[in-house]
Amino acid sequence: MKHKKRLWAYSLGFIGFIVASQAIASEEVTAEAGHAGTVALTFLWIAVILFFAKIGGLVEKIGQPAVLGELVIGVLLGNLALIGIHTFDPILENAIIKFLAELGVVILLLQIGLESNIGEMKKVGLPAFIVAVVGVVLPFILGTYVVGPWLMPGLDMNAYLFLGASLTATSVGITARVFKDLGKLQTPEAQIVLGAAVIDDVLGLIILAVVSAIVTIGAVSAGMIGWILAKAILFLVGSIILGQFIAPMLGKFFAKIQTGIGMKFTLIIIFGLVLAYMAQLIGLAPIVGAFAAGLILDPVHFRYFKDPKIVADVKQVLKNSETNDETAKAINSAIESHSRRHIEDLIEPVAFLLVPIFFVLTGMEVSLEALFNVPILLVALAITAVAIIGKLLAGYSIRGVNRNIVGFGMVPRGEVGLIFAAIGKGLGVISEEMFSVIVIMVILTTLVAPPVLNWLIKRQK
Amino acid sequence: MKHKKRLWAYSLGFIGFIVASQAIASEEVTAEAGHAGTVALTFLWIAVILFFAKIGGLVEKIGQPAVLGELVIGVLLGNLALIGIHTFDPILENAIIKFLAELGVVILLLQIGLESNIGEMKKVGLPAFIVAVVGVVLPFILGTYVVGPWLMPGLDMNAYLFLGASLTATSVGITARVFKDLGKLQTPEAQIVLGAAVIDDVLGLIILAVVSAIVTIGAVSAGMIGWILAKAILFLVGSIILGQFIAPMLGKFFAKIQTGIGMKFTLIIIFGLVLAYMAQLIGLAPIVGAFAAGLILDPVHFRYFKDPKIVADVKQVLKNSETNDETAKAINSAIESHSRRHIEDLIEPVAFLLVPIFFVLTGMEVSLEALFNVPILLVALAITAVAIIGKLLAGYSIRGVNRNIVGFGMVPRGEVGLIFAAIGKGLGVISEEMFSVIVIMVILTTLVAPPVLNWLIKRQK
Repeated sequence: MKHKKRLWAYSLGFIGFIVASQAIASEEVTAEAGHAGTVALTFLWIAVILFFAKIGGLVEKIGQPAVLGELVIGVLLGNLALIGIHTFDPILENAIIKFLAELGVVILLLQIGLESNIGEMKKVGLPAFIVAVVGVVLPFILGTYVVGPWLMPGLDMNAYLFLGASLTATSVGITARVFKDLGKLQTPEAQIVLGAAVIDDVLGLIILAVVSAIVTIGAVSAGMIGWILAKAILFLVGSIILGQFIAPMLGKFFAKIQTGIGMKFTLIIIFGLVLAYMAQLIGLAPIVGAFAAGLILDPVHFRYFKDPKIVADVKQVLKNSETNDETAKAINSAIESHSRRHIEDLIEPVAFLLVPIFFVLTGMEVSLEALFNVPILLVALAITAVAIIGKLLAGYSIRGVNRNIVGFGMVPRGEVGLIFAAIGKGLGVISEEMFSVIVIMVILTTLVAPPVLNWLIKRQK
Repeated sequence: MKHKKRLWAYSLGFIGFIVASQAIASEEVTAEAGHAGTVALTFLWIAVILFFAKIGGLVEKIGQPAVLGELVIGVLLGNLALIGIHTFDPILENAIIKFLAELGVVILLLQIGLESNIGEMKKVGLPAFIVAVVGVVLPFILGTYVVGPWLMPGLDMNAYLFLGASLTATSVGITARVFKDLGKLQTPEAQIVLGAAVIDDVLGLIILAVVSAIVTIGAVSAGMIGWILAKAILFLVGSIILGQFIAPMLGKFFAKIQTGIGMKFTLIIIFGLVLAYMAQLIGLAPIVGAFAAGLILDPVHFRYFKDPKIVADVKQVLKNSETNDETAKAINSAIESHSRRHIEDLIEPVAFLLVPIFFVLTGMEVSLEALFNVPILLVALAITAVAIIGKLLAGYSIRGVNRNIVGFGMVPRGEVGLIFAAIGKGLGVISEEMFSVIVIMVILTTLVAPPVLNWLIKRQK
């Protein structure tokens, strides 16, 4: 209780500080120095978003992933205007914050790509591929051609396409984190789900490319879809195959300029941003490029880079103590694996800074007014049911494992679903109502999976 | 030779890619999707800046700090227009890149603050304080009242004030890195220089506050200077003293929400950004606030946070090997010191991303046309001589150590000098010519110090 009271005290204190400083700012800063004032205010808004993202992180205490809390707190901040509080309205109009959010998604997909691994994708093999394909095709068809037109009749075909597309992609991040939290990452069910989620992500990104192009160009033809599909596959496969050759060469070469972690980090970011730009250039979403960049960049390409700090630490330990050969070997291999993983650890702080901005901002764009609309709420519940049933049937398309666990492991939608919704909204295809429906679906699938998985796994024992 | 040829091949290839993609972009992307195209182009520009920053990092091969290379490559990119290449001109007009650069300086000063330590400042004591004060006062007076009016007569008094101010602050980063590269961090000379550089930084920031206020308000009065000085000292000392109480409380409290490195990182960033905003709110530069935030945030306030990855690594090592108690202890203490330092390691990747943007952009703002002006070049050389002499005399104000090493250790100007120049230019006080003079002075003092220090230290043996 004391804990909770303090949280309220800190939150209210912080909100009070924002309101007070806004009042001062509107008189002094804005009047005085235009540009410098805007920059400093943007610093404050970034701090505000990160602060509330962390308050949202409290949902982890009740077993939910942090991304859910960031969305929910965003929804709250974005709808304070309904009760007359307009303190946070400037965030939604700030072009720099909007850019930082978009850079955040690119960094997130780069990160997901880095965590994925072409080798792992091959190992999980056929069952993962079947689960992925069924789990993408079924919800897409159900969403686009069945429940979409049935529950929300009279809309443009493009809107149904985006609805179907947003139902496809399982969130790798959420899925992995749920299994990790339950300590079940090494079970065959978890392996299949993780493998399928990776393939699923690639399929989802291709669907996004196809759907985006259909919407942008306005017409649908088999040849056009074929060309876009070919272009998307060519870009992904091409960048992966070429990248396998170019990345180690560039890694080896740039290691000659500097071998520090700064160079390693910068190469990763340059790869991610250039491929994001190239993807946009050929008509794909930038996140597709960032994901491909992440897939290309395997830690092994950076074996030429050493982390001087960790190496120094280990040398110190070995020097200061009587160490037998076994221990020395074990420590060296731990350091080896640590520095391999370091490539992901390096991107992490940048993700800490930028990714919550995307999710809080996405939450802020949800209009709660639409939720007071009972028909929309009912539609959202029905769409959520379809989202769950589609993935459950995908689980039932294979044998030899607990198919309920596989199916529910695929249920959480997250980043990618929201990105679909945001892009659809940006293109003017998805209405505010359908945007709200998709966000509710993402929140509910994310919310429903952890407790159900928990129950299924415990029942299995 | 092969190495150099490949570098040219990669650089030319990358430039070719930029030019080609620009050509495509101007036809396709821009025409098609305005906002998305602009965002993707900004991704490309960030990648371009980071790429060339790393090419600039090649100066490390000839014993120069990377910051120098970033400046020089910026100067080159910014002046390609002189030979008809306008490819990189859009970077200087991009408001988002400009914001990222300004966020970069804030992150840098937060980082410098984190590396500094109130305890260390006390230890180096009197000699460091004397060197700092003489090394700030002498160049400031020489610049503002002697060489400024003498070499560039007829300018506004405010311009001389900014020139004098930009001559004061030794670059902590460059100084520390020079001694570190030479393996001389533990000598008394290095200790005094490092201590003095920290005090010097605080003095420089106060001078910046005073000078900025004088320029902004337009009038100079002893009472006003006193009030600004009091406000600056009150803000710094107040935030440091209050921060000592509040930071551990907040650290302890937020550790209850999450104990991961994400929370640790986010708290540091929130502190830095909020204090940067508050500094701006009371009329100081945002970087003053960021520096104060860094000073407040000592690793000890984050003892409630553990890095689960490193802890798991160590447990694994200890489990897999026959380890005696001595070794286990040594490893644990190495991990302990590693996780204490982790607070700085977490900010580093964000600095890798944003800080080079500031330095490359600063270099790009240097007009080489001004350098073809022989009088300006001569003035720059004279100002550089004053910058060096001022710090050498500071070295001679103490006894018992090699005073030439202390003096030359204080010579490199860097970040802070450039920030002064950039702010002065932003306020319209510093002309393009004087901006170029200051940048040349920064480049030359940075360039001159490493070889001279190297020579002095070797002669000492």
